[in-house]
Amino acid sequence: MKAFVYQGVGKKALETRNKPEISSPTDAIIKVTKTTICGTDLHILKGDLPGCQPGRILGHEGVGIIDSVGTAVSTFKPGDRVLISCVTSCGRCIYCRKQMFSHCTTGGWILGNTIDGTQAEFVRVPYAETSLYLIPEGVDEEALVMLSDILPTGFECGVLNGKVQPGNSVAIVGSGPIGLAALLTAQFYSPSEIIVIDLDDNRLSVAKRFGATVTINSADGKAQDTVMKLTNGRGVDTAIEAVGVPATFELCQKLVAPGGTIANIGVHGKKVDLHLESLWDRNITITTRLVDTVSTPMLLNILRSKKIDPKLLITHRFKLDQILEAYETFGNAADTKALKVIIET
Amino acid sequence: MKAFVYQGVGKKALETRNKPEISSPTDAIIKVTKTTICGTDLHILKGDLPGCQPGRILGHEGVGIIDSVGTAVSTFKPGDRVLISCVTSCGRCIYCRKQMFSHCTTGGWILGNTIDGTQAEFVRVPYAETSLYLIPEGVDEEALVMLSDILPTGFECGVLNGKVQPGNSVAIVGSGPIGLAALLTAQFYSPSEIIVIDLDDNRLSVAKRFGATVTINSADGKAQDTVMKLTNGRGVDTAIEAVGVPATFELCQKLVAPGGTIANIGVHGKKVDLHLESLWDRNITITTRLVDTVSTPMLLNILRSKKIDPKLLITHRFKLDQILEAYETFGNAADTKALKVIIET
Amino acid sequence: MKAFVYQGVGKKALETRNKPEISSPTDAIIKVTKTTICGTDLHILKGDLPGCQPGRILGHEGVGIIDSVGTAVSTFKPGDRVLISCVTSCGRCIYCRKQMFSHCTTGGWILGNTIDGTQAEFVRVPYAETSLYLIPEGVDEEALVMLSDILPTGFECGVLNGKVQPGNSVAIVGSGPIGLAALLTAQFYSPSEIIVIDLDDNRLSVAKRFGATVTINSADGKAQDTVMKLTNGRGVDTAIEAVGVPATFELCQKLVAPGGTIANIGVHGKKVDLHLESLWDRNITITTRLVDTVSTPMLLNILRSKKIDPKLLITHRFKLDQILEAYETFGNAADTKALKVIIET
Amino acid sequence: MKAFVYQGVGKKALETRNKPEISSPTDAIIKVTKTTICGTDLHILKGDLPGCQPGRILGHEGVGIIDSVGTAVSTFKPGDRVLISCVTSCGRCIYCRKQMFSHCTTGGWILGNTIDGTQAEFVRVPYAETSLYLIPEGVDEEALVMLSDILPTGFECGVLNGKVQPGNSVAIVGSGPIGLAALLTAQFYSPSEIIVIDLDDNRLSVAKRFGATVTINSADGKAQDTVMKLTNGRGVDTAIEAVGVPATFELCQKLVAPGGTIANIGVHGKKVDLHLESLWDRNITITTRLVDTVSTPMLLNILRSKKIDPKLLITHRFKLDQILEAYETFGNAADTKALKVIIET
Repeated sequence: MKAFVYQGVGKKALETRNKPEISSPTDAIIKVTKTTICGTDLHILKGDLPGCQPGRILGHEGVGIIDSVGTAVSTFKPGDRVLISCVTSCGRCIYCRKQMFSHCTTGGWILGNTIDGTQAEFVRVPYAETSLYLIPEGVDEEALVMLSDILPTGFECGVLNGKVQPGNSVAIVGSGPIGLAALLTAQFYSPSEIIVIDLDDNRLSVAKRFGATVTINSADGKAQDTVMKLTNGRGVDTAIEAVGVPATFELCQKLVAPGGTIANIGVHGKKVDLHLESLWDRNITITTRLVDTVSTPMLLNILRSKKIDPKLLITHRFKLDQILEAYETFGNAADTKALKVIIET
Repeated sequence: MKAFVYQGVGKKALETRNKPEISSPTDAIIKVTKTTICGTDLHILKGDLPGCQPGRILGHEGVGIIDSVGTAVSTFKPGDRVLISCVTSCGRCIYCRKQMFSHCTTGGWILGNTIDGTQAEFVRVPYAETSLYLIPEGVDEEALVMLSDILPTGFECGVLNGKVQPGNSVAIVGSGPIGLAALLTAQFYSPSEIIVIDLDDNRLSVAKRFGATVTINSADGKAQDTVMKLTNGRGVDTAIEAVGVPATFELCQKLVAPGGTIANIGVHGKKVDLHLESLWDRNITITTRLVDTVSTPMLLNILRSKKIDPKLLITHRFKLDQILEAYETFGNAADTKALKVIIET
Repeated sequence: MKAFVYQGVGKKALETRNKPEISSPTDAIIKVTKTTICGTDLHILKGDLPGCQPGRILGHEGVGIIDSVGTAVSTFKPGDRVLISCVTSCGRCIYCRKQMFSHCTTGGWILGNTIDGTQAEFVRVPYAETSLYLIPEGVDEEALVMLSDILPTGFECGVLNGKVQPGNSVAIVGSGPIGLAALLTAQFYSPSEIIVIDLDDNRLSVAKRFGATVTINSADGKAQDTVMKLTNGRGVDTAIEAVGVPATFELCQKLVAPGGTIANIGVHGKKVDLHLESLWDRNITITTRLVDTVSTPMLLNILRSKKIDPKLLITHRFKLDQILEAYETFGNAADTKALKVIIET
Repeated sequence: MKAFVYQGVGKKALETRNKPEISSPTDAIIKVTKTTICGTDLHILKGDLPGCQPGRILGHEGVGIIDSVGTAVSTFKPGDRVLISCVTSCGRCIYCRKQMFSHCTTGGWILGNTIDGTQAEFVRVPYAETSLYLIPEGVDEEALVMLSDILPTGFECGVLNGKVQPGNSVAIVGSGPIGLAALLTAQFYSPSEIIVIDLDDNRLSVAKRFGATVTINSADGKAQDTVMKLTNGRGVDTAIEAVGVPATFELCQKLVAPGGTIANIGVHGKKVDLHLESLWDRNITITTRLVDTVSTPMLLNILRSKKIDPKLLITHRFKLDQILEAYETFGNAADTKALKVIIET
């Protein structure tokens, strides 16, 4: 089969590989029909995640059709259409019992990382019964690809952790795909104000279209002032960090109101300054989270009832043969204005 | 009347002052019967809190007897014995309506800070009806002084924010009065393990007596290793920072398990490093809080039912005339082994 | 001044009364500009609430302008435009400290019940600072009248108590004004399905317009079957009782899924059967509540941000002189199709 | 092997049966070392649970040693000592994903009910990995038998659902084994007052020994008066129903304070009266629950840290050969004063 393979820092190729096989009774083999590229895949290609070794098939998102199942799998059968979760969960370890699937002791984020992933014609998914979701009738498959990772990530790490509530104010710092996913899912809770902050006017205009009540280009260094004016000098109830660099985390500390929450989604490569000298008495909460995908069943319900349109996030479409081009397009988002790209296999 | 007055950096004296008078219909004048000294008072004397100006009568803790009340006060009358909360709340502003009394727009921590305090024969308490508590029959007055500040602080900032739960593991970094208050109140929730960490063996032996399951002297730099051994390599569910310096906050980051909480109580004078490069995907929560004293009614219940003995915290007793000596004793805790000192007026 | 007065069972009149006066330092006198009639007022007229004595000016909803304030009132001044909450709260009793204002020991629902109410040119509001809300700029006054009682009631007793969540299913039994208020405010949480059940096709068509995903006329006794079909045989996550008779509470018990909640809003005059023989092992929750109006600040935010249009509930408008006609119209809702009527004073 | 078999209404016997065999890859066969009898087993013998057919081996509690495992079971191996949960959970259905294991679509309470149970030398446990718990080192096996059902039931259905909190007041109506289990586990949360109500003075004296602050024999019909006196006329924050008949549920409605919770544990055979005419405006919550055993990992922690001594519940011990005598003893608790009986196999 064809598969997109990480070949070492800066090297990548579409290779021919053997079709994967069932290796444990709880496995399933999926014929991938649609997949996508995540910002994390770009990090792997740069060598930022040394846990992912050369030779690895990348990809942790997608939908497909069950090709075969292990002897212990009884809830899926060949031919079933399924959503592949970016997080694999055994359902039985100490973390899975707490619904913290991201930290599953034998699973977690392993697809396209420590085992072969979804940017291929077929993929082996361990613990199939607790890591795949049957696709409901009549749901659009492209929209579903957004439920593998980006929507649960924006929702769980940003919106749920950020305790977004009706009537509250929210600032989202970073208007890339993940910030936009937080923006779309924050609206489940009807906050009064959603302020989106970024340096890229194109992305801010997308944010406006997606439901931001105010957008701020922070290039002039006045984002804090503007937010304070909008919130009667108090700051926001929820500040969502969706970039992953010290400057944006610093900005969140300046925007959050007493009693508020900073919900970090960004993948950080270095430490940040935490200004406890001014925050120790401000009754704030800071959260971090790797997505657990516990919200997937809820998101499937929401999708079925058309309360959200995740296809808004999709800007480009490619065939698996064109995946190198897809990576180019996704990697040069500032020029291509790409958000999420769909790859059909 | 006699009153202990901050006279500028490093200067203090017992002065003679006029008895305070009702200045607003919601005020009460209290004859203070017992008060105490807080670590914050020492900070004021050092000049660390410039908001507190020379000439200020210090003290934000105590019990007393109602001397007179303003025309709008109907639930207290002269002669009533009352507990004075360290936080004054108007009960009507945007923060009070959220039970965040610490941030009351016209109250908060003002006693012995921006208005005259309790280390005097009499004190004026604004918003009396929402800032004083009637003392139940048969409750010890010395024990009650611990309910003005230190117990609600340990409980709200450490235990409640830290989400201490039955069967969980807790580490308390810092075994001073506030760490010990967290230790006493953490036991309301029956955690399986309460590990107390400090550099002072005397305070650790006090912690052991107060209910710590394990104590660790961190002088050898091996506290993290020991905690990991005790928790099967996972770390603790709750790490309570009860010191207020970068090193102890850093230690908390090393001790907290995936999914756990760092609850900061310490008063920090400078920024700290937050290691988001290793914590971004660990699903942790960090909280800060100035005590709101929302737990005072509950603590009064607990005290009445003898589920806790706050007098354990009291090591020394003085008369108001001896308050300079009381400050000496409290300020040299390493030598005097002082925890909390009672001052009778 | 003119005032609508309950004169004993079945008797009512527009009388001339003296303008009320400040009787406590925490009082305010409000010039009422707009008020409305509540279903509870009809109950009083029928003699169902003996706590409300003949001679009482009715009405517990409305907006107005501060005419004068007591000496202890500092946050409002004559001329301020305010929303009058149906619940008066002292802000200091054991229940107010728990945010359970409905059970305030000297307040609660007293306006137009045990003290004179808002269906008059002026009204005295006790505990003004904790029972009135400053009206934000640019908010429609008619819409605001819906925030005195009906919207917080639908929201707190139905939606919050019912734990409505994104992606969940909700059934609202009863499509009168209060059921419709629950319907409008349930949408703050983006449930996937909101099924409204009633016997009146007109009200069901209103429900459809207000956002119901499905409406069911239960006259044929098949409401349970239909709901089960819609929910794959499981029932709904939240069943909201908005009528107040045994039959509708019985229906809620049949509709609720394992793990679900029945949130009662209805005012019940007699006991109901609770089928513990079938519910004891179904992990359900049943709640009751008199509105606390704790959600009023949030609803003001929501109103300002135009996430809801409460004017949808207003079907008729009258002058205070026409209040007897207004009662006729509101009391014969089946014919007049009245939901809420506005009375301008 | 020997096994205790339900042979039809009123008939029971110790029979010889074939040792069970693995029938699915997720099964385990356990050599039972200790089991016990539940009140529910007595109900089965009376024919109250027609879902349990004659020929069924009873018992849903116990500890044992893994004898063999199916091909999909990787976390247990022969020789491992395990706790058997009364609830079998697949870990993957819609209810298991919500942690509502009691309603697992292919599991739930099936052991000794719809499949053969633990009152035998061996038992087959489906979904072994999500239904068994490895026994920690050094934990007493008899104490552990109490963790199969009675302690999680008292804790989850009574204490957690009842929202027992530090400083609160609790009434437990019924002082049988399940009421006592609620009493033991309520103390995890340090309520100020735990009032236990029963008709049997012996059981009340046991309750006193187990930590009740007050006990009331309700034979004189004055329980409500006494509770009101103890709670300043307000009633209790939590009323736990631990009997399962209309009279005790009625009493709970009279005892609960405004804002309080009635947590039902009792197995009810008929409907009860719910007095909504007096409760509709009291802001109360009523809960029902079949134990989910989600608290088992926490209870294992608590047991290991010796915060509870479940062996207090054990009054008698028998060998499997004596199981008929064990049933006699347990069934005549009024005379034998039996609480829980241990059966060694």
